[in-house]
Amino acid sequence: MESLTISDWLLTELKLGRFPPRMPAHRRVYETIRRAIASHHLTPGTRLPSTRSLADALGFSRNTLLAAFEQLHDEGYVVSQTGSGTRVAKMLPEDYAEKNTLPTATNTTITANGLSVRGTVAAGLVDQPSYEVQPFAPGEDDFSAFPTQLWRRLLNRQWRNPQPAHLDYGHAGGYLPLRRAIANYLRMSRAVNLTVEQILITSGTQQSIDLCARLLTDHGDRVWIENPCYWGARRVLEVNGLQLHPVPVDDEGMAPGNADFRRPPRLIYTTPSHQYPKGVVMSYGRRRLLLDYAASQGAWILEDDYDSEFRFEGRPLSSLQGMDQSGRVLYLGTFSKVMYPGIKLGYLVVPPNLAESFKRGLYELQRPGQVVIQAALAEFIEEGHFASHIRRLRQIYGERRRLLQKALAPVTSVGARLPPAGSGLHLVIELPPDCDDVRVAELAAEQGLHVYPLSGYGIGEHREKGLIVGYAYAATERIAPNGRILADVIRAALSH
Amino acid sequence: MESLTISDWLLTELKLGRFPPRMPAHRRVYETIRRAIASHHLTPGTRLPSTRSLADALGFSRNTLLAAFEQLHDEGYVVSQTGSGTRVAKMLPEDYAEKNTLPTATNTTITANGLSVRGTVAAGLVDQPSYEVQPFAPGEDDFSAFPTQLWRRLLNRQWRNPQPAHLDYGHAGGYLPLRRAIANYLRMSRAVNLTVEQILITSGTQQSIDLCARLLTDHGDRVWIENPCYWGARRVLEVNGLQLHPVPVDDEGMAPGNADFRRPPRLIYTTPSHQYPKGVVMSYGRRRLLLDYAASQGAWILEDDYDSEFRFEGRPLSSLQGMDQSGRVLYLGTFSKVMYPGIKLGYLVVPPNLAESFKRGLYELQRPGQVVIQAALAEFIEEGHFASHIRRLRQIYGERRRLLQKALAPVTSVGARLPPAGSGLHLVIELPPDCDDVRVAELAAEQGLHVYPLSGYGIGEHREKGLIVGYAYAATERIAPNGRILADVIRAALSH
Repeated sequence: MESLTISDWLLTELKLGRFPPRMPAHRRVYETIRRAIASHHLTPGTRLPSTRSLADALGFSRNTLLAAFEQLHDEGYVVSQTGSGTRVAKMLPEDYAEKNTLPTATNTTITANGLSVRGTVAAGLVDQPSYEVQPFAPGEDDFSAFPTQLWRRLLNRQWRNPQPAHLDYGHAGGYLPLRRAIANYLRMSRAVNLTVEQILITSGTQQSIDLCARLLTDHGDRVWIENPCYWGARRVLEVNGLQLHPVPVDDEGMAPGNADFRRPPRLIYTTPSHQYPKGVVMSYGRRRLLLDYAASQGAWILEDDYDSEFRFEGRPLSSLQGMDQSGRVLYLGTFSKVMYPGIKLGYLVVPPNLAESFKRGLYELQRPGQVVIQAALAEFIEEGHFASHIRRLRQIYGERRRLLQKALAPVTSVGARLPPAGSGLHLVIELPPDCDDVRVAELAAEQGLHVYPLSGYGIGEHREKGLIVGYAYAATERIAPNGRILADVIRAALSH
Repeated sequence: MESLTISDWLLTELKLGRFPPRMPAHRRVYETIRRAIASHHLTPGTRLPSTRSLADALGFSRNTLLAAFEQLHDEGYVVSQTGSGTRVAKMLPEDYAEKNTLPTATNTTITANGLSVRGTVAAGLVDQPSYEVQPFAPGEDDFSAFPTQLWRRLLNRQWRNPQPAHLDYGHAGGYLPLRRAIANYLRMSRAVNLTVEQILITSGTQQSIDLCARLLTDHGDRVWIENPCYWGARRVLEVNGLQLHPVPVDDEGMAPGNADFRRPPRLIYTTPSHQYPKGVVMSYGRRRLLLDYAASQGAWILEDDYDSEFRFEGRPLSSLQGMDQSGRVLYLGTFSKVMYPGIKLGYLVVPPNLAESFKRGLYELQRPGQVVIQAALAEFIEEGHFASHIRRLRQIYGERRRLLQKALAPVTSVGARLPPAGSGLHLVIELPPDCDDVRVAELAAEQGLHVYPLSGYGIGEHREKGLIVGYAYAATERIAPNGRILADVIRAALSH
């Protein structure tokens, strides 16, 4: 579409577009342009007319156009470079091609697939479960480290003579002995500051985030997320009608600037101890900054401590929650990585004044259960199996990590950067900004290796390039050979 | 507050009220009045000025006032009697005292408890878990009929040598053999018309409804619910930002009239085979009507077949889904009643064209797991234990039901009505419209009996009166004596 004709075309679209009767003008403009981008009527790189000229052509106030452009910019649809004006972003968030959100009470858009608008967004990305951390070498995930027979005996013990209450829903926010066991673990190993009453047992991270989004935010509220960020969290926040405000991540973690501070959120979702996916650890200063800002704004911080158990060197970091003086942090953890993903148990530590409401909301919205498994897990922890299992996993995953780092070393010669040994279940190979990491991932796939482009986790125009390589669940003996193949792919890709 | 002063007061409130900048006038009026009612500034029975006089006083168009009043009426805040004008409803939906919904993209209301507006609604009711079907005689629920030792052996078998895939999340919409087993069961016993691909295993009814609400509706869409209706469903639909449109229930089930048909929904939530809580069976004509209407409007019907397994006499009814020619019905069932509530497994049957999207949405939003338990359940069904267990439960619950009906028989002498033997896990004693069923329930509680006022399940002014008595989980030997005590309470209450 010629930039010259855009305003005329926009005018027609605005007339034709099916909008709710009372939808404000800036939303109509925003929607019309966003749809045009999503449907590729406005192609990436296309230059948009100035807000002033559009305002004149459409007969709207300039503020109306500015508001619309600001939102398009926030959501990564357009980019502005001083001098060259505003252009359609070259790289759009993957799901936006399908997305078509009208956050209004009279939305009656029907999508082709029969789903609602938010439904299309929610279901849009899951054909890439590859975004899950999973082995970079194909084949089944390796859960062989998990002591299934010990676990079987613990479950058995529970089932031999279960109390009726264990067969019922969980009315109490979780099985008390499990909550106690988690409280002790978090106090010792994560410096989390809590009483047992503050802990809720959820059915995992997705459900924890969902519960927080529903109990602490309203449709249309703003949420800060890290850019790049964890897909799963983003999807749940989006389906709850939240406005995503991406905040860049630097070497000190989430790095909000003045432009961000001017757009205070209701909720801040962050991964301070090991940024997902980049792996950065949030600095002390940044933690203070976030905590103070949240307190000043009355915003909530959602600290996702998703893989803190897997720190291979150095002392474990304390949690953001442990530094919080104002009761603004909700801390969440999961058992899906230490135990097994399908266990579907996680926990949420909420400020004391929210504990009762969350217990209610958890019951009302999710009807938790699986108390028998919670009881077995409590024994697993109390009897020390949990701690020793973590030690064992740390050893195994640490070795896999070292083998992978070693096999990948050669890539540094072509400008790729490897992270320090660090921690976690995956590592990120940083690639030069000008390289096409999607293409490199494709080349790796041709060699039968599953790695994921870092850019795919980003939002908006300026996305970091890199490859995300999951090693934790890959069989140890296959790490080195596959790592070498991957290194060759990268070197070949970067050398021309 | 004097009706005379209301318009002046309303004028001030409208000026003071913190509303989003672009909130339409009718919403402001609606919100202001609703808040006044919720905060008891406008007391039940208070007569409101006419829309015309208010329109003049406020300088709004009459349509603005009519729109606001219509919504207040739909949501049960006000009632209009010809002649006596519009008054604040005497009986308000329990949760509305706390509710304060502004379905707009700029809602920044902060509630006292630190929760969001929808969070307050979501968490508002759960201190009444009594609304769960539970024994009317205090004490622990009786799950003794469940074959725990057989179940333990089946789980054990699974855990002896679990496949890695069973420890992972469920990527496939559920464990295939379980989906097959359910498909066979539903075809035979519920005349559900389906292929295995249409079945999804969820973690229960709340999650099934939540998934449908998110994938099929958008914030602000209208949903029809039965009045009276199942609290849990209502709560989940509400937290998803849906406008609840209550539809009365008569002896043929959900009974939409012309006023309802003029407000077409995106979703219809119904319990045709055993209306919750009243127990009415939806007539054939009504089923056809609903199906045809849904097809003509492109609305979805959510058929909650929550307790169809427990039909004590007569042939089991076929499902609404089985009659559906247009693929508008989603059918949901649960294992929490036949197995045990804490198992947290349910299923959803979706139209073929939605199957793939729902599989994706399920994974993306809920990260299902517990595949080991799904596998054990599949064997439980395949080996015939499920069918025989249902037969056994039917016998036990049927006997408890008969004992209760017998013990309650005397209440008919004071104008109360008992339902036919029927089916299910609870029965409803219908009380005269002029009686205070909340008070009767309190009197029963003083005798140590937990029964629930039918009016508490209703929405709006005209609520049926009655008592809901859960018998299924009460020990058989205590049914008769406790039933007689309850009968005495009712007779005493109704005779003066």
